[in-house]
Amino acid sequence: MKAGIYYSPNDIRVENVPDPKLKNPTEAIIKVKYACICGSDLWSYRGIASKDKGQRIGHEFLGEVVETGSKVKKIKVGDLVLAPFWYCCGVCPECKNGISSSCRNGGAWGGNGYDGGQGEMIRAPFADSCLFVIPKGQTSEKMLKSILPLTDVMCTGHHAAVSAGVEKGKTVVVVGDGAVGLCAVLASQRLKAKKIILISTHPDRARIGRKFGATKIISARGEQAIKQVKKLTLDAGADCVLECVGTKESWEDSQQMVRAGGMVGFVGVPQGVPGISVRDLFSRNFGVKGGRAPAADYIPELLKDVLSGKLDPSPIFTKEITIDQLAEGYKAMDKREAIKVLIKF
Amino acid sequence: MKAGIYYSPNDIRVENVPDPKLKNPTEAIIKVKYACICGSDLWSYRGIASKDKGQRIGHEFLGEVVETGSKVKKIKVGDLVLAPFWYCCGVCPECKNGISSSCRNGGAWGGNGYDGGQGEMIRAPFADSCLFVIPKGQTSEKMLKSILPLTDVMCTGHHAAVSAGVEKGKTVVVVGDGAVGLCAVLASQRLKAKKIILISTHPDRARIGRKFGATKIISARGEQAIKQVKKLTLDAGADCVLECVGTKESWEDSQQMVRAGGMVGFVGVPQGVPGISVRDLFSRNFGVKGGRAPAADYIPELLKDVLSGKLDPSPIFTKEITIDQLAEGYKAMDKREAIKVLIKF
Repeated sequence: MKAGIYYSPNDIRVENVPDPKLKNPTEAIIKVKYACICGSDLWSYRGIASKDKGQRIGHEFLGEVVETGSKVKKIKVGDLVLAPFWYCCGVCPECKNGISSSCRNGGAWGGNGYDGGQGEMIRAPFADSCLFVIPKGQTSEKMLKSILPLTDVMCTGHHAAVSAGVEKGKTVVVVGDGAVGLCAVLASQRLKAKKIILISTHPDRARIGRKFGATKIISARGEQAIKQVKKLTLDAGADCVLECVGTKESWEDSQQMVRAGGMVGFVGVPQGVPGISVRDLFSRNFGVKGGRAPAADYIPELLKDVLSGKLDPSPIFTKEITIDQLAEGYKAMDKREAIKVLIKF
Repeated sequence: MKAGIYYSPNDIRVENVPDPKLKNPTEAIIKVKYACICGSDLWSYRGIASKDKGQRIGHEFLGEVVETGSKVKKIKVGDLVLAPFWYCCGVCPECKNGISSSCRNGGAWGGNGYDGGQGEMIRAPFADSCLFVIPKGQTSEKMLKSILPLTDVMCTGHHAAVSAGVEKGKTVVVVGDGAVGLCAVLASQRLKAKKIILISTHPDRARIGRKFGATKIISARGEQAIKQVKKLTLDAGADCVLECVGTKESWEDSQQMVRAGGMVGFVGVPQGVPGISVRDLFSRNFGVKGGRAPAADYIPELLKDVLSGKLDPSPIFTKEITIDQLAEGYKAMDKREAIKVLIKF
C-alpha cells in the first residue's frame, strides 16, 4: 500500500509499504477513504518539532473496516468509521474521566509502531473504543467531507470553546484563523455565543469565519487588535478567548484580550510560550485551560449535529489531492495557499 | 474612636483617631459591631507584605449604619449591614461582569484614605453597592457570627470552589486548613461535591474540616500527600483542587493532585509562586483559575443560605477579643493558637 513517509523538513514522500496486519485481537484494519493534512503536521515539516526519518505521518482519517480482531464486538467489517486523532483505550481512569486525549494507553497515529493517517490502510488499536461508525445511508461524499474534520480540527476548536466556558450570551475572541481557529468560531456559534470576534488578517479565512458565525473580524494583531477588542467590550475584554495558535505572541494577545474573571481556552500546541504569571492570573482573576482535545469524547455529540445537518465544518477544505500528490499538499499548506488539504483515496 | 494601626511587623496598636466624616454623598458611616482578623492581615504583620506605618488595618466587618450621604437610597440609618472585603462601585464594566473584586473604582479597606475594618467606625464608599442589609429579626449574636465570615473567608472559599468548577459528584481536594481552606470545604459540601479531601496536619482544624463536610483528611504534605490523593482517585488525581495557601509548595502539590482535564481553583495570595508552564497545562489538560473573590457578587446567594440555617461557617472563630486586645489577637493568629479571631465591639 502507499503511505506518506517523513524524511526530513520539507521532504515528505509517498512510498510503497507492506499492508498492515492485525497484531492484537482488539484491533481493526481500515481502508482509508479520506484523510487530511493537519496544521500540526507542519511543525515537523518545518523542522520545528522533531520527527524520525522514515516515520509515518498523518492522524486524521476516515475509512472502511476491512478486518477486525477476535475481541472486537462493536465495529464490523464493512462499517465506515472515523477515528479521533489520538487513539485511546476507553477503559483507563483518564478515558473514564472523559479526557481520552490523556489516555494512558493511547497515543498518536504514526507513532508507537502504528500506521499514520496519510496512507491507504491503517491498523487501529482499541477498535471498539476509538472508532466511530458512520450510519449507513449517511455516506455521501458531501456528508463524509463534513464528518472528516471531527477527526481533529472540529473537536479541537470545540475543545477551545468548552475549555473557555463558551455558552449562551458570552462574548468570544478567537485568536488564530487556521482550520482550528475557524472551527473554534463554528463551535462558539453552536454553543450560542452572543458575539464572536475573529482575529484574522487573511480575507479568504475571514470569509469562512463569517460563514461560521463570526460577528466581527479584526484584521490586526498585537496592540492594535487588543485595542479593538477592548473597544468592542466596554474596555473590559472578552468573556472567553480561544487561543488557537500556540506562540508567545498569540498568548500575550490572548491574556490582554480576556476580561477580568474571564477564561482563556487554548489548543494551539505551545511553541516557546513563557510561563504564565500566577500573580497576573490572581490580580485579574482570569483562568486558563486547554490542551490536546479529547476528540473521542466529543465525536458522538458533534457527529449527531453533522448528521442532522446542523453542523458543517467542510468549508475549511480548500484543496483536494490524491495520496500521490501529498508533497504538493504539504507545500500548499506550508505556503498558506490552502487552509486545509483533503486527501481522497 | 478606637482603631487598629499598623506600625511595623509584629507591632499593631490600638489608638484613638478622629471619628470618620462623610466626604461623598454616596457614602455611609457604620458603627462596627463585629470584625475579624484575616490570614492576609498576617502577611504585613509578618513583614512579608509591605504596609505603611500608621496605616489602618482590617477588612472584615459588620455593623450599624449611623449616617448616610444624600445620594444613598437603598441603605438606611439603623440598618445592620455587612461589607465585602473589597469595596466596589457596582456600575463599572467589571462590577457589571460580576467580578466586583476587579472593580476599577474599588479597593481595600484601610487604603486610599478609607478606614480599616478593625476600628469602631468606618466610612464606606458606594454604600448602595457594597453594603448588604441583614434583615431585622435575624440579628441575634449567633446569627451575626454566622454571617460575619461572608465578608471575606466564606466568599473566598466559595470562590476557590467556583473557580475549580466544583459541582455535584466531583472529587475535591482542599489544600490549606486555615479559615479559607475550611470555608472551601464547606463551600464544596454546599455545591454537592461527592468526595472532599482536606490536607490538614492540625487535628483541631481537621476536626472543623470534618464538621464542614470533609470526607477524608490527609495529614501529610508534599509527595506523601500527593501519593494519598492518587490512591483515593484511581491513580488519576482529583477533579478539582482548591489551592488556599499561595506558596510555591502548595502550588506544586496542587498541580500534582489535580487529574488530567481537572481544574485548580486558587485563592491563596501568591507569595513567590513561579510561573506555570503552559506545556504542563497542555500536556495534562488541567486548568487554573482564581484570585481575589468577588465577595459582593457572592454575598446575596450565600447570605440567603446563612439566614435560612443551611450554611454556618461560624466554627472558624476560635477566639473572641475586644478591640483593646487587638495585639493579642494578632499574636494568637500568628502563632496558630487561633484559626480566626473575632473582634467584638
